[in-house]
Amino acid sequence: MYPNDGFRELGRQECLRLLAKVPVGRIVYTRRALPAVLPVNFGLDGDGAVLLRTSAASELVRAIDGAVVAFEADEVDAVRHSGWSVVVTGSATVVTDPAEHERLARTGPVSWVPAPQEVFVRIEPELVTGRELVGGRTLYGVDLSA
Amino acid sequence: MYPNDGFRELGRQECLRLLAKVPVGRIVYTRRALPAVLPVNFGLDGDGAVLLRTSAASELVRAIDGAVVAFEADEVDAVRHSGWSVVVTGSATVVTDPAEHERLARTGPVSWVPAPQEVFVRIEPELVTGRELVGGRTLYGVDLSA
Repeated sequence: MYPNDGFRELGRQECLRLLAKVPVGRIVYTRRALPAVLPVNFGLDGDGAVLLRTSAASELVRAIDGAVVAFEADEVDAVRHSGWSVVVTGSATVVTDPAEHERLARTGPVSWVPAPQEVFVRIEPELVTGRELVGGRTLYGVDLSA
Repeated sequence: MYPNDGFRELGRQECLRLLAKVPVGRIVYTRRALPAVLPVNFGLDGDGAVLLRTSAASELVRAIDGAVVAFEADEVDAVRHSGWSVVVTGSATVVTDPAEHERLARTGPVSWVPAPQEVFVRIEPELVTGRELVGGRTLYGVDLSA
């Protein structure tokens, strides 16, 4: 399925382990019919769902609630030409259940600076994919998505 | 237009100056009707177009040639809660003009490791947006996209 392109495909658990190492990823969605991407800090729920915390009134929430989105995080060493990239693809939904909101307020991601009327957004880990980039191989010139 | 959320909107030239500082960004596109995102290294053309170099046979090329895509790069300091993010949105096209291909082979991005039958992809800088994150403010809990 994958050509011998210098990349190693990562298993789901390995992807989630790597995701847990970094504080910031990027949410990929559609805004006004255009592709959009936004860096956000995040947490991981026990089942691998990505948890964001944002203002209830934000344009981001309006754009992603109920939509399928991708969430990407990576670490790349440009000198060694190595690193990894993980993408979680799934439905994003605002957490509306009060008990669940309360649980996430205790255990979920912590705002660097709190905003008024925060909500949690869960991105279901329906598809969890990742690649490890082996040193000395290019990030382009190779079909990462083959 | 923008709330006082701790972010400073960046001008086009400032965005391009920041983009030129980093070797790797992320291309955001649609693959099989799902949002997709892929880290790639890149170059900038004189007019601010983002230049990628990839295999002519790659799935990436098939997915983005002729499509509107977003290209994002960022630097975030998770300790200081500061950094920046820049997004270039525009049409992606494979460079087919031989003279232009030749020019980019001389001046465009250099593959970390060359692949056979490489092509250049130009992402037109139709929309160039960016934000500087001021220290002590959150990346979420604030509507970056307001």
